[in-house]
Amino acid sequence: MASLSCSSDLATLINHTATANYLCNQFDSISRKLNDATYAVDNTYLLFSAYLVFAMQLGFAMLCAGSVRAKNTMNIMLTNVLDAAAGGLSYYLFGFAFAFGAPSNGFIGRHFFGLRDYPTPSTDYSFFLYQWAFAIAAAGITSGSIAERTQFVAYLIYSSFLTGFVYPIVSHWFWSGDGWASATRTDGNVLFGSGVIDFAGSGVVHMVGGIAGLWGALIEGPRIGRFDRTGRSVALRGHSASLVVLGSFLLWFGWYGFNPGSFFTIAKGYGRLGYYGQWSAIGRTAVTTTLAGSTAALTTLFSKRLLAGHWNVIDVCNGLLGGFAAITSGCAVVEPWAAIVCGFVAAWVLIGLNKLAAKVEYDDPLEAAQLHGGCGAWGVLFTGLFAKREYVEEIYGIGRPCGALMGGGGKLLAAQLIQIVVVCGWVSATMGPLFYGLHKLNLLRISRDDETAGMDLTRHGGFAYAYHDDEDGSSRGVGLMMRKIEPASTSPSPPVAPLSISSL
Amino acid sequence: MASLSCSSDLATLINHTATANYLCNQFDSISRKLNDATYAVDNTYLLFSAYLVFAMQLGFAMLCAGSVRAKNTMNIMLTNVLDAAAGGLSYYLFGFAFAFGAPSNGFIGRHFFGLRDYPTPSTDYSFFLYQWAFAIAAAGITSGSIAERTQFVAYLIYSSFLTGFVYPIVSHWFWSGDGWASATRTDGNVLFGSGVIDFAGSGVVHMVGGIAGLWGALIEGPRIGRFDRTGRSVALRGHSASLVVLGSFLLWFGWYGFNPGSFFTIAKGYGRLGYYGQWSAIGRTAVTTTLAGSTAALTTLFSKRLLAGHWNVIDVCNGLLGGFAAITSGCAVVEPWAAIVCGFVAAWVLIGLNKLAAKVEYDDPLEAAQLHGGCGAWGVLFTGLFAKREYVEEIYGIGRPCGALMGGGGKLLAAQLIQIVVVCGWVSATMGPLFYGLHKLNLLRISRDDETAGMDLTRHGGFAYAYHDDEDGSSRGVGLMMRKIEPASTSPSPPVAPLSISSL
Amino acid sequence: MASLSCSSDLATLINHTATANYLCNQFDSISRKLNDATYAVDNTYLLFSAYLVFAMQLGFAMLCAGSVRAKNTMNIMLTNVLDAAAGGLSYYLFGFAFAFGAPSNGFIGRHFFGLRDYPTPSTDYSFFLYQWAFAIAAAGITSGSIAERTQFVAYLIYSSFLTGFVYPIVSHWFWSGDGWASATRTDGNVLFGSGVIDFAGSGVVHMVGGIAGLWGALIEGPRIGRFDRTGRSVALRGHSASLVVLGSFLLWFGWYGFNPGSFFTIAKGYGRLGYYGQWSAIGRTAVTTTLAGSTAALTTLFSKRLLAGHWNVIDVCNGLLGGFAAITSGCAVVEPWAAIVCGFVAAWVLIGLNKLAAKVEYDDPLEAAQLHGGCGAWGVLFTGLFAKREYVEEIYGIGRPCGALMGGGGKLLAAQLIQIVVVCGWVSATMGPLFYGLHKLNLLRISRDDETAGMDLTRHGGFAYAYHDDEDGSSRGVGLMMRKIEPASTSPSPPVAPLSISSL
Repeated sequence: MASLSCSSDLATLINHTATANYLCNQFDSISRKLNDATYAVDNTYLLFSAYLVFAMQLGFAMLCAGSVRAKNTMNIMLTNVLDAAAGGLSYYLFGFAFAFGAPSNGFIGRHFFGLRDYPTPSTDYSFFLYQWAFAIAAAGITSGSIAERTQFVAYLIYSSFLTGFVYPIVSHWFWSGDGWASATRTDGNVLFGSGVIDFAGSGVVHMVGGIAGLWGALIEGPRIGRFDRTGRSVALRGHSASLVVLGSFLLWFGWYGFNPGSFFTIAKGYGRLGYYGQWSAIGRTAVTTTLAGSTAALTTLFSKRLLAGHWNVIDVCNGLLGGFAAITSGCAVVEPWAAIVCGFVAAWVLIGLNKLAAKVEYDDPLEAAQLHGGCGAWGVLFTGLFAKREYVEEIYGIGRPCGALMGGGGKLLAAQLIQIVVVCGWVSATMGPLFYGLHKLNLLRISRDDETAGMDLTRHGGFAYAYHDDEDGSSRGVGLMMRKIEPASTSPSPPVAPLSISSL
Repeated sequence: MASLSCSSDLATLINHTATANYLCNQFDSISRKLNDATYAVDNTYLLFSAYLVFAMQLGFAMLCAGSVRAKNTMNIMLTNVLDAAAGGLSYYLFGFAFAFGAPSNGFIGRHFFGLRDYPTPSTDYSFFLYQWAFAIAAAGITSGSIAERTQFVAYLIYSSFLTGFVYPIVSHWFWSGDGWASATRTDGNVLFGSGVIDFAGSGVVHMVGGIAGLWGALIEGPRIGRFDRTGRSVALRGHSASLVVLGSFLLWFGWYGFNPGSFFTIAKGYGRLGYYGQWSAIGRTAVTTTLAGSTAALTTLFSKRLLAGHWNVIDVCNGLLGGFAAITSGCAVVEPWAAIVCGFVAAWVLIGLNKLAAKVEYDDPLEAAQLHGGCGAWGVLFTGLFAKREYVEEIYGIGRPCGALMGGGGKLLAAQLIQIVVVCGWVSATMGPLFYGLHKLNLLRISRDDETAGMDLTRHGGFAYAYHDDEDGSSRGVGLMMRKIEPASTSPSPPVAPLSISSL
Repeated sequence: MASLSCSSDLATLINHTATANYLCNQFDSISRKLNDATYAVDNTYLLFSAYLVFAMQLGFAMLCAGSVRAKNTMNIMLTNVLDAAAGGLSYYLFGFAFAFGAPSNGFIGRHFFGLRDYPTPSTDYSFFLYQWAFAIAAAGITSGSIAERTQFVAYLIYSSFLTGFVYPIVSHWFWSGDGWASATRTDGNVLFGSGVIDFAGSGVVHMVGGIAGLWGALIEGPRIGRFDRTGRSVALRGHSASLVVLGSFLLWFGWYGFNPGSFFTIAKGYGRLGYYGQWSAIGRTAVTTTLAGSTAALTTLFSKRLLAGHWNVIDVCNGLLGGFAAITSGCAVVEPWAAIVCGFVAAWVLIGLNKLAAKVEYDDPLEAAQLHGGCGAWGVLFTGLFAKREYVEEIYGIGRPCGALMGGGGKLLAAQLIQIVVVCGWVSATMGPLFYGLHKLNLLRISRDDETAGMDLTRHGGFAYAYHDDEDGSSRGVGLMMRKIEPASTSPSPPVAPLSISSL
């Protein structure tokens, strides 16, 4: 557009310097304001998307809290708050540098530690904030898998390692301009001439969180009482369906930042049609996201009705989230109808993996490994099958291969399979030994007594709820707290034994 | 602006093709970027407004959950999740086509099934998403009216019919460019030279949901125990005021998407004053919305204090929502002071209709018919009285009639009255027979036993809450779950038995 | 840019009126559209920021609800709803006029009553909405300090006075273009050549709310049972940690509107680098906010572990909020690393003030005076120490002094100290006598009986929760409601006396 060369160019043409200067000043002035407006709208878009993604952390907190028993609510909510807070510091100090520090090699970034030399012409603080909100999501997923039986100190260790190192590396590989498998690699030398298309992170975020959780949960084993002596699965129901629904809806809300937000900018036209541009692709991404989640929710509703005999809102919420986790990879490059296929299969992936988990006595209180790991992997695969040529080219450039079922051959699909293998391998190779080491050092699992009593009473300063006052002097010292009611059948005490914390 | 004709036009003037081309290229390049920036900001505005409207679904879920008894919480939350999920699929497949498929006749749309041939030069995916979020709100309103006593299968049927057909038709009539009563009719042949001004849907959304609920609740009758033998009203209080307040605030939050968002675009100047444009009208709409709700809340606070003797937050929340439902029609075309009038009257409409409901033994657990139907109808009327000429002309075009009390004569008011009649008629003619048919087929109301026990235990997999653990072996098979409370009248225990969970 | 003078200017240069007109029309047309796009993005940015700030009111409501005992939940939530609703009316009628009515003197504004002659070229409705959302926050802070023991009528009085007069005056002084201490004073005659930099209101909002709460809580004294006979502090735990975490996360979410939103506009470049502008400063402000809160949360986590022996999520949430309250003043003008310093100190300020409060038997159920007053004051000071020259000049103009530790001398620091003194003085001089007068008139504190029974039962229409049904005939008349458990020590009834509301 208008620039310093304008005056000389134009002066040559019209032989009148004053006129040329006048016109060029006009062009310059307009261009500067237009440049400002464009940066303003792109950053507004990305900032508010980041805020939505941050709201997912609240969604996770409520979902997790509602899905565990009341006695462990304070514990799990603390991990959710800390994921955000500790992640804020570590991502600022080094996580963001490992992930997006450019220029760098294909394996790990090495600039922008503590946001030095930032912002750059291509990325601004809004991008940092957006990526931070992503980083803290992964750790939140893992918390779910190992809930209700993990020592707090173990949480502090694995969470820092995951958010500060394991996750940033993966995001570097698949998302940074230098990553060896990134479809946006700036030198054009992309994997299989395609690069991995994991648009908003079914693999980078959800599989990473889910597989980390899988290792943690496998190594520490199921919660007490989760499987009876004969190995039959016994549901340990969460304490509040309202919190589960609140959390699920908040995650849905936030996913509109997660998926459509991953375009980073919005003010970019796509070719001749003036009305068609990145804003349309972004809107379509919101639509595919909605349809995949909706389909998965409905599929779960009716399947569970057939399989279990009731209409269960908790299952429907999990199905919904499974659909979201799956569409997250391909959301920007598939047609709305394909998103329906994606969600339908995701629901069955989740149902199947839950059956399998029960069979092998794997206990994951939030179904996080099945949901984020399993549905996430399906999503990565799905993109390799259903990505549409036109959309892929609009986003990644002309000539890029599209999905195998859309006439694109096997290159993209191969890249996607590579991602699944590599993510599984990397997370297993890093988080597996970490959890195993913590286990060997007796730092992973809490004691039987703590588990029975609940971590809130023993480690976190008390029970999360107190719906009744208890103001008699005897319990003053411990605050006002809900009484624990003993099961009538197991004790000789009077039917209503007031049992304050002090007597535990 | 700058276009292909520029070069030839300019070449004629300055007789120098190279100069003309140079200048026109500059204009073209700037125009393209400006076009992109404008689409970007308009779509950013509409997308985030859509997300806010979606957040209202979460608000509804929490409001409904808190307003019913604990034993029916899972049931009502499931309907809220499904409104969004099933609505996502049906609105994509045909609902949006019925509502906005253009070109079409005045009664029903007939394009864009499954978003074929979409987006268009005038509407993008963001518009679809925004309208979907509106569509699911109507069904949520109806759920409230018939809560705690309706079979789940009945919900599945009426909800699909309402979201997929009844509501889209109404929105076609009043909002699409082809609708017979729409003020934005593209052929200019508007009803009474005015068209109905139902800017964000007091009639299209709130009355539709409220009247549908009215028929459902009338046909199935009040909940057991809602009126005693002498016909006296007995409050069946909801189980959590915190959820009610949470839901109400979320609805307030979301209403900023609902009302100001209904402008669809923001980058449009209004005449000479460079600083005054659609962005100002949008801000003013947020202000009128705030003032109407606030006034209704305060009016309710003091009236209820006088009438009932206490300061009740639940009543205040309902008053607040009544004010919002009323201002939704005229929010964009009235002065802030008029919004205060709107809210004041809305509060009394709600109080009056609640008194009437108690008198005729009409039971609506969420007051949804009174609130959305009654205050919504008042809002439609209010617009016919208080719409300001200047604002009407800015939005709908020069020469359009304004409110009867603002010197606009009776044309707009007549159109508004037509809307009230037509919406009542259409919803009654479609939803009335549907509910009646379900009733005759014994598909509408649950059994007495189910109603007494609560639907969560009998149909939805268990009670929503478990604040205490109960880990004795005997209950293992059913998980850890709050025990079902038997009605005291069926047991020999004393009337007010000191009642812990375990003794029941 | 292009304007009416364009044609004549250009015609002089090129001696061809038709060509000049043609070119100038092009410039004009582009300029108008660009002007629209710029206003659109700035207003979109400010409106959605205002919505986020409004969401903080929901956050406050949940935080307050969870932090009080169940028996006072309805009461405190009602105050939160009313802060927003009554604030909406009073800020429209006169609050906004006192604060920003221009032109005016340095002490109080005197235009825009009822939004007359509004909008103006420099401020639009979005600005009103944004400032309203700020105004209601201050009253919310004060509610927390005097929770669980204050008459509702006292709340109505102090809240109106605070939102309608005390707060608007303070915001006029420090934020309006006419304020005597404002750094944005339009006549350039700023205090000490610097003006106070309280960017988003550590002083204007948080100190005002906190100091008002301090006087209220001091005058009415601690809750019954808060300190035992020997003066030892007895925690009166809130009834729901889930609500506390929900509220804290919502406040975090909303703070992204509070701090970065205080730029009001986003489409403004900063000098030569085209990619660096107000959008970058806004993003950086979001980052400093995140880092200060995160650091304070982590600092609190580990300090409390050392001091109290457990990992407590409630404490961590309060620490987090203390970090936010502190960074709110300097968020826009400090480096990210300085934000870490800010948060670290804020955590210790809060811990120290809480110790002090326990020692002097000061009872503040939400720690609001300590958190908002104390950390807010630290934040004002912090800005005087750490404000960076480059950032100060970008926002406030070339030549303005920066922080004392950043080579800026003592001028800014002096201005900041003046703010602390003036805010303390003004709020004490207005709210102190008000609370004292209410106290003397017996309008401030509730009776012992009301306090023991809880305000919800005695004043607000019933208990907030009913998790169990109680369907025996005897209690029908009062609805289904949780039973109140009498303190065992104060009645001759059996240890767990079932007391339904009907027997009160």
